[in-house]
Amino acid sequence: MHALSASFFLQMAVILVACRLVGILAKRVGQPQVVGEMIAGVLLGPSLFGYFFPDAMKAVFTQESRGILYAGAQLGVGLYMFLVGLEFNTDHFKSRAKSAACVSVAGMLVPFILGALLVLWLQDVPGIFTEKVRYFEGALFLGAAIAITAFPMLARIISERGLAGTSLGTLALAAGAIDDAAAWCVLAIVLATFGASQPLQIGSISIGPEVLAIGGSILYGVLALTVGRKIFAAFGRSAEKHGKVTQPVLMIVLALFSLAAWYADIIGVHAVFGGFILGIAMPRGLFADDIRRKIEPFAVAFLLPMFFTFSGLNTKLDVLFESELILVGLAILAASIFGKFFACWGAARLTGEDNATAMAVGTLMNARGLMELIIINIGLQRGIIGESLFSILVVMAIVTTLMASPLFELVYGRKHRHELQPVVEP
Amino acid sequence: MHALSASFFLQMAVILVACRLVGILAKRVGQPQVVGEMIAGVLLGPSLFGYFFPDAMKAVFTQESRGILYAGAQLGVGLYMFLVGLEFNTDHFKSRAKSAACVSVAGMLVPFILGALLVLWLQDVPGIFTEKVRYFEGALFLGAAIAITAFPMLARIISERGLAGTSLGTLALAAGAIDDAAAWCVLAIVLATFGASQPLQIGSISIGPEVLAIGGSILYGVLALTVGRKIFAAFGRSAEKHGKVTQPVLMIVLALFSLAAWYADIIGVHAVFGGFILGIAMPRGLFADDIRRKIEPFAVAFLLPMFFTFSGLNTKLDVLFESELILVGLAILAASIFGKFFACWGAARLTGEDNATAMAVGTLMNARGLMELIIINIGLQRGIIGESLFSILVVMAIVTTLMASPLFELVYGRKHRHELQPVVEP
Repeated sequence: MHALSASFFLQMAVILVACRLVGILAKRVGQPQVVGEMIAGVLLGPSLFGYFFPDAMKAVFTQESRGILYAGAQLGVGLYMFLVGLEFNTDHFKSRAKSAACVSVAGMLVPFILGALLVLWLQDVPGIFTEKVRYFEGALFLGAAIAITAFPMLARIISERGLAGTSLGTLALAAGAIDDAAAWCVLAIVLATFGASQPLQIGSISIGPEVLAIGGSILYGVLALTVGRKIFAAFGRSAEKHGKVTQPVLMIVLALFSLAAWYADIIGVHAVFGGFILGIAMPRGLFADDIRRKIEPFAVAFLLPMFFTFSGLNTKLDVLFESELILVGLAILAASIFGKFFACWGAARLTGEDNATAMAVGTLMNARGLMELIIINIGLQRGIIGESLFSILVVMAIVTTLMASPLFELVYGRKHRHELQPVVEP
Repeated sequence: MHALSASFFLQMAVILVACRLVGILAKRVGQPQVVGEMIAGVLLGPSLFGYFFPDAMKAVFTQESRGILYAGAQLGVGLYMFLVGLEFNTDHFKSRAKSAACVSVAGMLVPFILGALLVLWLQDVPGIFTEKVRYFEGALFLGAAIAITAFPMLARIISERGLAGTSLGTLALAAGAIDDAAAWCVLAIVLATFGASQPLQIGSISIGPEVLAIGGSILYGVLALTVGRKIFAAFGRSAEKHGKVTQPVLMIVLALFSLAAWYADIIGVHAVFGGFILGIAMPRGLFADDIRRKIEPFAVAFLLPMFFTFSGLNTKLDVLFESELILVGLAILAASIFGKFFACWGAARLTGEDNATAMAVGTLMNARGLMELIIINIGLQRGIIGESLFSILVVMAIVTTLMASPLFELVYGRKHRHELQPVVEP
């Protein structure tokens, strides 16, 4: 066991140093930290580090310590989605309901149509989907992968540029939140019908994996958002009374989080759903602010880099040099960028937004960031997609995320520079 | 891998729920949370949960997920010792140097003499030490285990009761800090001479494990506290400038921590030393306060319970029912309690403290808490002590920690109740 401790700390040192170095470069060219970390993860994998130094890569990321990397990665994205849920605010929807509904429906519909069309071609390309996957599962998965938005990144860009109360800010936040919630629901359905879990045997009754996943998700969601929300309100009162979240309450919240993640895992959806729904059901206000202060720094600075690296270790960019896969990659990239952008831009224009706002919405909704990586890692782990499609979607995630900040500056920043506040450090 | 995620979250849910339940009971009887968690860890192991439900214990703590538990435990105690180092304040020493020096020297000397005497008897008792251990290593290890003080707990009791500026507070803090630093040095020496690491081969030069451990520790300590301290001062300036520790700085600090823990592991001392020295070398003030706010909540509420459980899984209380081992246990318990108490009380009396203060110092120095568990877990992992001595010392750690709060109330609280502030929640 002693060797495991040393190799774990070495692994973490390499990961954190790499994330910081690429993060510094990313910042130099005006990109957010998360882009740097996505790229750092890929560079630590077989695409660069393992390509030039295969023995060193095996020495740093030993088979034994990969289990730890995996657990840390799951914990990191689980806690991250819990915090995203904690920030989820239905108030956004109300003030600009019509535009937001149009933008988000268009931003879902077009990606799913494109996904369905692409899968007609892709279902016979080797390395894209696994053999077990049925057509509609592949189409829904690819649709969700194209439709997803980096909602937390979108929210951060909007708040950093002081756009939170503006027409653009409200519209983009509302549309992004609806799109993300819908994409996660679709993913849950794909996972449920794909039935990766075993049938549950209770006495002589056998519950099929689809029933377990769908029924279990609905049961959990309803319970968490009704009974759960009422019970959890006590945490909010405790926080108000003490002026902070006390250590015992933090521990109970982390215990509930672990239970939710475990439950979501065993019913066959994924730990992140458990965390996300739990976050939505938790009280807002001082409680949510202090929970965020206590969990986010370590989760983002230590655990998420584990996820980026775990994801990068599975990313093999060399597959993209095969001729057919280059075509597949370009087609998916084009469908993702143009599908999402034009759908959102067009819907915003049709509901009466000016061109700059509509283009800004299209740009913001196009960033996929960490959310895309989470979805495709689930797809790979569950055996829905193959390594080639996984690697293509990693590139797509990085490219669309890289584009977001400069394009946003171009279509909205310049024109509205006089209204903008200085960008603060994330 | 998917199953690993579910079993990890289940394990964490069980651990956190158990820690909270026993924590609530502990608080009811006026004990601090840490006592509850120490006991919860033991109860989750073969002494209770595994005794009555061996299959359930194996299902929750699977062989695969134990590696994760171990890594989380190492990370937790490493970060904890980093935070202890960050709190380490040599200013305490100055104002009451004479009393503090006497109390701490006595509080070291008597335990080491008792340890040396006990090992004369214990070296032939099976299950106490491993065969490889030489007499002086066993004596030094047992001496350090008896001499160690739960410095962080002592500091918390003093600050909670508003004794920080008092004669008692200053004396106890100074003596506790010196004792702990000395006990850790002794442990480092034991680990170094025990030479658990392999000789290092550089070209034709072979560096023996003792030289590597002692030379490597001195080199690291000197570099960290001179060059390192100067470089790390930049973190302090960054924190002052931004009014907080920024995400990139937090990441660099965690990368440095991982490097330090890895280095200490491979030279053959232990990850905790790397973290502790790094903490001492870090700047104080706003930086230290904000680093603590960002790391401590998760480390204490999530990672330390993993350590308590990992430790508890190795604790087998049934060995204590063998007749000779009961005697050994009682002898070690008596030597620990009376040795430490009378040594510190006597030294304080001799340097002119009144009886209440001297007794209070003796009581406070007697609590061993988490520090004891860390030392004996290292001893067990490195093959210095056997399971029987480990289990005896777990009981000793719990008993001496349990005694501290009520005894302190008895000898000091009542008499000085009019000066006391209400106890705040930890």
